[in-house]
Amino acid sequence: MHIAITGAAGFLGNKLARQLLKNGKLLGRSGKPEAISRITLADVTAVTGISDPRVHTVVGNISDPQTIASIVTPDTDSIFHLAAIVSGQAEAEFDLGMTVNFDATRSMLERIRSLETRPRMVFTSSVAVFGGPLPTSVPDTMATLPQSSYGTQKAMCELLISDYSRRGYLDGRTLRLPTISVRPGLPNKAASSFASGIIREPLAGQAAVCPVHGDTRMWLMSPQQAVNNLIHGHELEASKFGFTRTISLPGLSVKVRDMVAALERVAGVDVAQRIEWTEDEAIKRIVNSWPGDFDTQRATELGFTSDEDYDSIIRAYIHDQQTS
Amino acid sequence: MHIAITGAAGFLGNKLARQLLKNGKLLGRSGKPEAISRITLADVTAVTGISDPRVHTVVGNISDPQTIASIVTPDTDSIFHLAAIVSGQAEAEFDLGMTVNFDATRSMLERIRSLETRPRMVFTSSVAVFGGPLPTSVPDTMATLPQSSYGTQKAMCELLISDYSRRGYLDGRTLRLPTISVRPGLPNKAASSFASGIIREPLAGQAAVCPVHGDTRMWLMSPQQAVNNLIHGHELEASKFGFTRTISLPGLSVKVRDMVAALERVAGVDVAQRIEWTEDEAIKRIVNSWPGDFDTQRATELGFTSDEDYDSIIRAYIHDQQTS
Repeated sequence: MHIAITGAAGFLGNKLARQLLKNGKLLGRSGKPEAISRITLADVTAVTGISDPRVHTVVGNISDPQTIASIVTPDTDSIFHLAAIVSGQAEAEFDLGMTVNFDATRSMLERIRSLETRPRMVFTSSVAVFGGPLPTSVPDTMATLPQSSYGTQKAMCELLISDYSRRGYLDGRTLRLPTISVRPGLPNKAASSFASGIIREPLAGQAAVCPVHGDTRMWLMSPQQAVNNLIHGHELEASKFGFTRTISLPGLSVKVRDMVAALERVAGVDVAQRIEWTEDEAIKRIVNSWPGDFDTQRATELGFTSDEDYDSIIRAYIHDQQTS
Repeated sequence: MHIAITGAAGFLGNKLARQLLKNGKLLGRSGKPEAISRITLADVTAVTGISDPRVHTVVGNISDPQTIASIVTPDTDSIFHLAAIVSGQAEAEFDLGMTVNFDATRSMLERIRSLETRPRMVFTSSVAVFGGPLPTSVPDTMATLPQSSYGTQKAMCELLISDYSRRGYLDGRTLRLPTISVRPGLPNKAASSFASGIIREPLAGQAAVCPVHGDTRMWLMSPQQAVNNLIHGHELEASKFGFTRTISLPGLSVKVRDMVAALERVAGVDVAQRIEWTEDEAIKRIVNSWPGDFDTQRATELGFTSDEDYDSIIRAYIHDQQTS
């Protein structure tokens, strides 16, 4: 069985790749678990640190059709399409966001369609497709009113993947991820970058800026939970999806001040005091447009899962850092 | 004041052009009604039958950037973008639908953006953006789950126009039109074509096929009401739109059997008996995925209006035919 992952140099793609290599199997065209014989890891930068004979790497920009052609080949059974320009950057660089987040996804769908191989594709969307006046808990039937270009591009891809799937060009599954926390590594240009930074940096002995109000409610998921749900989304039978291939994943609804309180409980007062509260209007405008809580009935019925509490997310992050 | 209308050879674009020429004025950049000095009527076929010194015509395909450049010029103040491949054809010819319904709209938005003139644009979307399990009456907050490629393309354009407007590249307004009934002229490839055909053809002494069940509930608007609402949508202050530029227009919710009953009341039993009931699965699949009733609170608050009853729609159609 041949798999491709885009955005594989990113931490989530990378973590997914490791998990798949470890699992060794994934549901194949036979409808049964099949041994993974090849994983193509694609990104604009080289994917490092994974040494496995099953791994092939593609370094290139997915806005280039040649790159897409080398990622999606006639023997590609499944694709995890995670590559994206993050929210803050897509807002600042409109054309870049359109090209990578929308056009490249469409090119990939067209490549798949032209091959007539109908692979499975798991695509990651985001809570950023929502905005405007929202109920306290966002239901599965909620209209998408993105208040950012990133959210707009993701919502357009959701529609396209559902239509291509309905037409039988591929077997797509779009999972709307909560904000991932705690991401390891460096801050990025996502408006939600702080949701990891305010935990990660203090734990590393560094100061971190929290650019939003403590009352801001975030919809969160740990990296491991995200990987588990991406794989679960792949394994589901196509017939279970019904009228749309898009699913809002379950998450944890936590206020920023309660994230910090959890950090204090897990790592101590001194660590939590490394956070500086300096509001940033550009980040606030985007983050405050996102819903902080969902009623993800459909995802729960389909067997997707959420983290237990934020304390255990922090503890898992600390454990991962110590063992990696 | 300079106006452009795409799809101007279509009956709705044509009717709109005549109405605007008759009115002579439209809200201009001054924020006040301004005299219409030029209307550019664009379509793939020549627009005929309108003789007025203010009219300029562009014949060309809007998927050609050259055509778009001649429709949207630096002195274009307002655009009514009505050109589209209809639902049945967009389903049968996927690439054509994507090119005309989505790519051409995007090219037009990019043309507008490059001019930096920020014109008003009224775009027509459709009830076809909805589908899947729906409440009896569809609220303004309902998720778009199109079950056709046409609906998908329209929903993608809605998102793009809201984002371009939010970014200040233009002042867009997307109106989701109910099914227009009674359209004059010939049947077309829209899945909803019958909703005019079952009235128009019997009134002309011809047989008409009704491809759906009599219990099918349709969301309808007369041509004159549609023109009034398109103009109203243009005249509204941008600030009234809030978090999205997309609005579901109010309509009349009528069962197909009650449309026929109205025809019988207005034109007699003999006329209504010219309808043959022969169900067509392809048409039923698309039409049955559309909602038959809406709660259009937002549109009503913004002053959009619906027809009084279906009998008066038929009477207005008969009157128009006799006087045109």
